Amino acid sequence: MKVGFIGLGNMGLPMARNLLRAGHSVTVHNRTPGRAEQLAGDGAAVAGSASEAARGAEVVVTMLADDQVLRSVMFDQGALEAMAPGAIHLGMSTIGAPFSRGLAEAHAAAGQGYVAGPVFGRPDAAAAARLWVVAAGAAQYVETCRPLMEAMGRAVSVVSADPWVANVVKVTGNLMIACTIEALGEAFALQRKWGVEPRAFLDVINAALFQSPLYASYGALIADQKYEPAGFRLRLALKDTRLAMEAADAVSVPLPLASLLRDHFLAAVANGRGDMDWAVLALLAAENAGLGKTSP
Amino acid sequence: MKVGFIGLGNMGLPMARNLLRAGHSVTVHNRTPGRAEQLAGDGAAVAGSASEAARGAEVVVTMLADDQVLRSVMFDQGALEAMAPGAIHLGMSTIGAPFSRGLAEAHAAAGQGYVAGPVFGRPDAAAAARLWVVAAGAAQYVETCRPLMEAMGRAVSVVSADPWVANVVKVTGNLMIACTIEALGEAFALQRKWGVEPRAFLDVINAALFQSPLYASYGALIADQKYEPAGFRLRLALKDTRLAMEAADAVSVPLPLASLLRDHFLAAVANGRGDMDWAVLALLAAENAGLGKTSP
Amino acid sequence: MKVGFIGLGNMGLPMARNLLRAGHSVTVHNRTPGRAEQLAGDGAAVAGSASEAARGAEVVVTMLADDQVLRSVMFDQGALEAMAPGAIHLGMSTIGAPFSRGLAEAHAAAGQGYVAGPVFGRPDAAAAARLWVVAAGAAQYVETCRPLMEAMGRAVSVVSADPWVANVVKVTGNLMIACTIEALGEAFALQRKWGVEPRAFLDVINAALFQSPLYASYGALIADQKYEPAGFRLRLALKDTRLAMEAADAVSVPLPLASLLRDHFLAAVANGRGDMDWAVLALLAAENAGLGKTSP
Amino acid sequence: MKVGFIGLGNMGLPMARNLLRAGHSVTVHNRTPGRAEQLAGDGAAVAGSASEAARGAEVVVTMLADDQVLRSVMFDQGALEAMAPGAIHLGMSTIGAPFSRGLAEAHAAAGQGYVAGPVFGRPDAAAAARLWVVAAGAAQYVETCRPLMEAMGRAVSVVSADPWVANVVKVTGNLMIACTIEALGEAFALQRKWGVEPRAFLDVINAALFQSPLYASYGALIADQKYEPAGFRLRLALKDTRLAMEAADAVSVPLPLASLLRDHFLAAVANGRGDMDWAVLALLAAENAGLGKTSP
Repeated sequence: MKVGFIGLGNMGLPMARNLLRAGHSVTVHNRTPGRAEQLAGDGAAVAGSASEAARGAEVVVTMLADDQVLRSVMFDQGALEAMAPGAIHLGMSTIGAPFSRGLAEAHAAAGQGYVAGPVFGRPDAAAAARLWVVAAGAAQYVETCRPLMEAMGRAVSVVSADPWVANVVKVTGNLMIACTIEALGEAFALQRKWGVEPRAFLDVINAALFQSPLYASYGALIADQKYEPAGFRLRLALKDTRLAMEAADAVSVPLPLASLLRDHFLAAVANGRGDMDWAVLALLAAENAGLGKTSP
Repeated sequence: MKVGFIGLGNMGLPMARNLLRAGHSVTVHNRTPGRAEQLAGDGAAVAGSASEAARGAEVVVTMLADDQVLRSVMFDQGALEAMAPGAIHLGMSTIGAPFSRGLAEAHAAAGQGYVAGPVFGRPDAAAAARLWVVAAGAAQYVETCRPLMEAMGRAVSVVSADPWVANVVKVTGNLMIACTIEALGEAFALQRKWGVEPRAFLDVINAALFQSPLYASYGALIADQKYEPAGFRLRLALKDTRLAMEAADAVSVPLPLASLLRDHFLAAVANGRGDMDWAVLALLAAENAGLGKTSP
Repeated sequence: MKVGFIGLGNMGLPMARNLLRAGHSVTVHNRTPGRAEQLAGDGAAVAGSASEAARGAEVVVTMLADDQVLRSVMFDQGALEAMAPGAIHLGMSTIGAPFSRGLAEAHAAAGQGYVAGPVFGRPDAAAAARLWVVAAGAAQYVETCRPLMEAMGRAVSVVSADPWVANVVKVTGNLMIACTIEALGEAFALQRKWGVEPRAFLDVINAALFQSPLYASYGALIADQKYEPAGFRLRLALKDTRLAMEAADAVSVPLPLASLLRDHFLAAVANGRGDMDWAVLALLAAENAGLGKTSP
Repeated sequence: MKVGFIGLGNMGLPMARNLLRAGHSVTVHNRTPGRAEQLAGDGAAVAGSASEAARGAEVVVTMLADDQVLRSVMFDQGALEAMAPGAIHLGMSTIGAPFSRGLAEAHAAAGQGYVAGPVFGRPDAAAAARLWVVAAGAAQYVETCRPLMEAMGRAVSVVSADPWVANVVKVTGNLMIACTIEALGEAFALQRKWGVEPRAFLDVINAALFQSPLYASYGALIADQKYEPAGFRLRLALKDTRLAMEAADAVSVPLPLASLLRDHFLAAVANGRGDMDWAVLALLAAENAGLGKTSP
């Protein structure tokens, strides 16, 4: 398939490489120069602008930082206008539902297709083509994009015919992980004050109750107080929490847990922890219990 | 082993039966008459009082409703005094850490052993001898009790030499499940408002992220809005949350999630839902989003 | 002074009338026709568009619903462009600090002045020229606008040379009132459950502690459960809470009280109470305690 | 009147002195020796035990630290038993409603009267006989105690015929002050980050909105970051918050604000601030915004 790929960050670069490996013809673009060139050896064509990457593509994949950057690329830099009628935009960035809905309308007005396909997974999962893609959009567009999504991930879950719904699912999923981190952080602080090793506690509750690899991995991170380097930067988790609250506000849904998490994320950013792993949320719980980074 | 067993409720009765099946000699007592007699056919001796059940036992197992009932049994009804020096009290009720610590001191003063062994699991797990026992106490006492705990459960996790620590672990574990329920409730309310089926959402996030049977089972309960009959009554979950907050207060640990949950549990009790399953927490989240018990 | 006045809602109309009464020459405009004409008898000139009202004015006063409407008026409808160099925009709407900062920059670039002057007070205070104006901006611009602000209010507090700071102060003030409402609501629910009349409780704590007319008036409203007609619609209070949280997010300040209030406001909107007085927050507190609107 | 007075702390001592000044015959007792002797010069008789102070008194006034100390005095040390039938216990300590109800029952069973009369006011108000007494109890007992209460305070508010209701009112009042402190703390943190002086902000919102001396005095304390010496120790504020939550739990009332405050108080205690003024709550709000004790 003829693919344009815009956004070659820590996620986008390995994702584009997997498309190339799957045999697709990919024209790549990245705002910061140098990234695109890394894919030239894999057979990518390098475009000098976003609109050039979009022009002539059957599917334009975007993997960008946030609403603002994607808006700039699609509208200000003309990628949407450059797309042919009938072409499909596969938006894989984690963006807000309202903006995603606006995109859907703009593409429809231009006679183009739009599929939202945000992903669960970190750069290592992207490199291993192990992402989990949450897809939504009209069936024919989703089916056209399916081989691409499958080339980048281990599974594709189609959740709705309305593209923006995939974005709601994605940010809600991240919110639920943040709840788990907060719960582990509070629980560990309590255990430490009563003399229980966080690891021992974690082993018991995960064996007896959750049986979840996610609890095991985040629990280990927090027990070891290993917040750097970041697997997922707290600053981005705050962004996703904002998106979840924005989606909730739009349909009048109170989210007390998100509210609590947002405040804790803000406190972390205010205290210079925005670039640490979001698991550092647990450090605030410990500090509020009078515990420093090292054990009592 | 010669065992006294006090407290034959929905949990205690099947637990005592499993001890009998494992070949132990068990004298049982229950405040409400009629329960003990159900075990006579299994070979239990029936005691007319708590102190009679305790007298002469190597190990006295208690499985009672709360601190108050256990205090009454051990002190007011004389079970502690009836226990021989060197005998061990295996306390399996979900009680508060401060009271458990007091019990430890009282038994030590009487030259008796004390092991706290609260369990994770519901009546069906108790019947199937599939409980998960969280044990704490001096090593020699724990080892003496181990065959009993193994006869009642699928695993025994020893978390500390201080008995009361097991009680902290137990109530913290329940708190973490409550967090999961609340997180699912809020997430589902948001999905419903955006047109996503809770079941579909649950499938995605559990496959992609948590991979936890506990998320699957509570998620299904909430998606189906099946809050009666209760697997675990909300009223008891509120009790356990109080115990967790009491334990946290005793060592000055703020628990914002527990605070939030406590308020939601209280609202549920105030509105006549105290005897529903604690998953009904999710109904409050739905109602606060303007959603009734049936879908929008 | 030659004044353009844009926005003749429940607040703007009496404010413009007070400018006319003070002898200023006022050209008025309102999006919905009919409102401006009500001021013709007071001597106002009626402009057919926002830019027409702005053209030739020494000071352009705006009193509009929110950021979006003000952005539309100043930019899309050309009011900013129509203003002369050296003219001053006195923005009295309750808007967000980030947008207010953007306005300051746009006016500076156009060689124009900008004073933010949001007000405390309801329509009856506007009619009686009893508003409290929170002003911020460069001193010479503030002084030029002072006679206008004094004609509309009982006091002018100048809080900063940076205009947008006045907007922060305004939304924070509203947030603090909302806290008071929530505190009264929770306190009254507790009193009612213990058999204390809210009025009696209010009298004691206001006489003994707060001595505040604001506590007295909101307390009376809540004690009487008189939530309609709205003095200040909950929907607008939610808007102001969002603005406060946006201002806080911009500088990384957690606001746990605002988070809690936002969720309660959202629950109220979701349950059809968006157009009631914001004091209806207290009804949610009562309902969560199992108390209906009438119950003891 | 013949009065026994038990508890001569920072509050009790000046209160007892005011009774002596009003001409009453007062026998005083304090656990720690030395305090009672300070009143000998004012004409007090000094009792060697609580029960001795209670014996023969028409009214026994208690002003003690908490439920535990009062329970010990009345029951373990025999003060209740020493009181004559028909004598009245005027309990002025800040205690929990459930325990106060228990006291009411015990006195009734002994043919004695019981009036709860907790006070608003600090030691300086006690010294100046400017306390505000919140009284509850059977009318005839309250009227008998009225001259005593009036000798110690500037006003007496009778809120119920059920004594314990006065205790609910008292702790709720303190909770509302704590809300004010928290609201001021969060608001100030936001202002500081936007460059507004807390004092300037305070002046505006108190002039325009609250007009409350309590907002003025706590606001000044927080603006000056003057948390020592404590006017009211945070540790005691936490105690009162617990009492409010206990009262709320007893009748199933969620109190989200109290929950939030409790967690903040616990964080303060955990970080060594339990003996500072409760206004130090505002320091946590500042720190969570990345602001230290001194301005940014």
